[in-house]
Amino acid sequence: MKIGLDIMGGDYAPKATVLGAIAACKSLAEGQKLVLIGDQAVALEILQENNFSADNFEFVNTTEVIGMGEHPTKAIVQKPDSSISVGFNLLKEGKIDAFSSAGNTGAMLVGSMFSVKTIPGVQRPAMTTIVPKLKGGLGILLDVGANADCKPEVLVQFGVLGSLFAQSVYGIENPRVSLMNIGEEEEKGNLLCQATYPLMKETTLFNFVGNVEGRDLFNDSADVYVCDGFTGNVILKMAESFYVITIKKGLKDEFFDRFNYEQYGGSPILGVNAPVVVGHGISSPEAIKNMVLLSKNMVETGLVDKVKQAFQ
Amino acid sequence: MKIGLDIMGGDYAPKATVLGAIAACKSLAEGQKLVLIGDQAVALEILQENNFSADNFEFVNTTEVIGMGEHPTKAIVQKPDSSISVGFNLLKEGKIDAFSSAGNTGAMLVGSMFSVKTIPGVQRPAMTTIVPKLKGGLGILLDVGANADCKPEVLVQFGVLGSLFAQSVYGIENPRVSLMNIGEEEEKGNLLCQATYPLMKETTLFNFVGNVEGRDLFNDSADVYVCDGFTGNVILKMAESFYVITIKKGLKDEFFDRFNYEQYGGSPILGVNAPVVVGHGISSPEAIKNMVLLSKNMVETGLVDKVKQAFQ
Repeated sequence: MKIGLDIMGGDYAPKATVLGAIAACKSLAEGQKLVLIGDQAVALEILQENNFSADNFEFVNTTEVIGMGEHPTKAIVQKPDSSISVGFNLLKEGKIDAFSSAGNTGAMLVGSMFSVKTIPGVQRPAMTTIVPKLKGGLGILLDVGANADCKPEVLVQFGVLGSLFAQSVYGIENPRVSLMNIGEEEEKGNLLCQATYPLMKETTLFNFVGNVEGRDLFNDSADVYVCDGFTGNVILKMAESFYVITIKKGLKDEFFDRFNYEQYGGSPILGVNAPVVVGHGISSPEAIKNMVLLSKNMVETGLVDKVKQAFQ
Repeated sequence: MKIGLDIMGGDYAPKATVLGAIAACKSLAEGQKLVLIGDQAVALEILQENNFSADNFEFVNTTEVIGMGEHPTKAIVQKPDSSISVGFNLLKEGKIDAFSSAGNTGAMLVGSMFSVKTIPGVQRPAMTTIVPKLKGGLGILLDVGANADCKPEVLVQFGVLGSLFAQSVYGIENPRVSLMNIGEEEEKGNLLCQATYPLMKETTLFNFVGNVEGRDLFNDSADVYVCDGFTGNVILKMAESFYVITIKKGLKDEFFDRFNYEQYGGSPILGVNAPVVVGHGISSPEAIKNMVLLSKNMVETGLVDKVKQAFQ
């Protein structure tokens, strides 16, 4: 298995990414190799500084970098030798089995749709995040920003994607899928939720358990929380800010500790023809390591094939 | 001034409401009188138990109660002698100057629109909540659930309502009004936000400061946060759950203390022809007291007249 990593992506790249690659490398089994995509000379320097043999990795040298603030589509087109563009080409050609980056999220989304493309039958890929549960364990929230406006059928598909992801990668059996709403009753909500509920209620594609509300995100009401990308993005950023506030205030608690994005590595893009993970811009080496290991898990569990089967 | 209070509304009514009325009564100036609307015999009993003279209040006896789970429109029509229906009749007839209840939120919303009616020019009334700021002080979030689906023009009107409320009741000069979105740039967001931003940018009705994100809710980016009622309701309930979690975990901090809804009393319904406040279902006597005092402040500051002028 070859696991591609964009070493130029993220606010602290390439140092944090190469250090993360070293850490990830130590967790890989035989036959699993990390492919570092980016400025090879700089990577070699960092490896040497850390007395870690370059033989542990494969390298694909690139000469361009897509900045965090660049327009995704333009950047992908105008910078063919950027680490993100090259990474997606390698993924498309099957030269790597997974690709992850803590760089420009939009470019990762556009890149995955342009290169490996959306799985036939999937209307829109979704980005997910992990939400820690108070009683322990975790839930999956999607979409968190790939699709600001969604149709009811698209939310139903997110239910399928989230359910398969929860089951394959996190071992949650028969995941309880919920619809994020503003009331428990079937008829509650905005027009989108009102149209989505009956579709989810009828579907045999996942285990629908009904509506949940903002207050249910951290309790044990469900394993998968489905919403449009606007709502999910607001939730995600608000949860992050709470975590940051608890840190700033020196409030230590194992529940809040589990908000730390570093543990989860990143947000997978579900519904495309290969494992792709996008890391947080501020990714530390620990976060990069876990992003790489998450992309590896997605390969090992055959998540993409499971999604393909579900949408056949 | 006569301040109407539904003593039958809320999970702990009538005990919590009558005790709250006693507490509020002690904060009122001469010429300000509380009108207790509900089961007079029960109220008199509670007052006697607490050695508080009934002469401090006026009473309007009612024989029916709208339950928390009842369908708002049906309940208002089918229970004309309910405390909420009677309260709105008194408000409409000018026999009370403000009305508040910790009862059925939907019935309060429908009741206010049926009785005192929406202010001419206001497309949709909005419900607001207070968000504490990390640095101290507070912000206003609206809508938090009255309108699950909104048009761009309606969000602009929420900006006007929120701005006037922040200025009149909380003394915030030239309030900074923001649009809750998923990115800072003008072109970001769902279709609703993309259509709303240019309208807000052009308006001279309030001080628009641009987009904010979920992470900005508790910092000092803005004084008023405008969103549709779906997004606002998810935010509100998520913030409440965070507060409950910090309480359960015994985390004491002055910032989290300021999430306590009891201090703010309730959510005003802005855009109707009289001051109306809806309390939290679980309102304690302290919350009831502050709900009453908030409705009194809305009368004293002439908020409704200011809104009428703005929409002339």
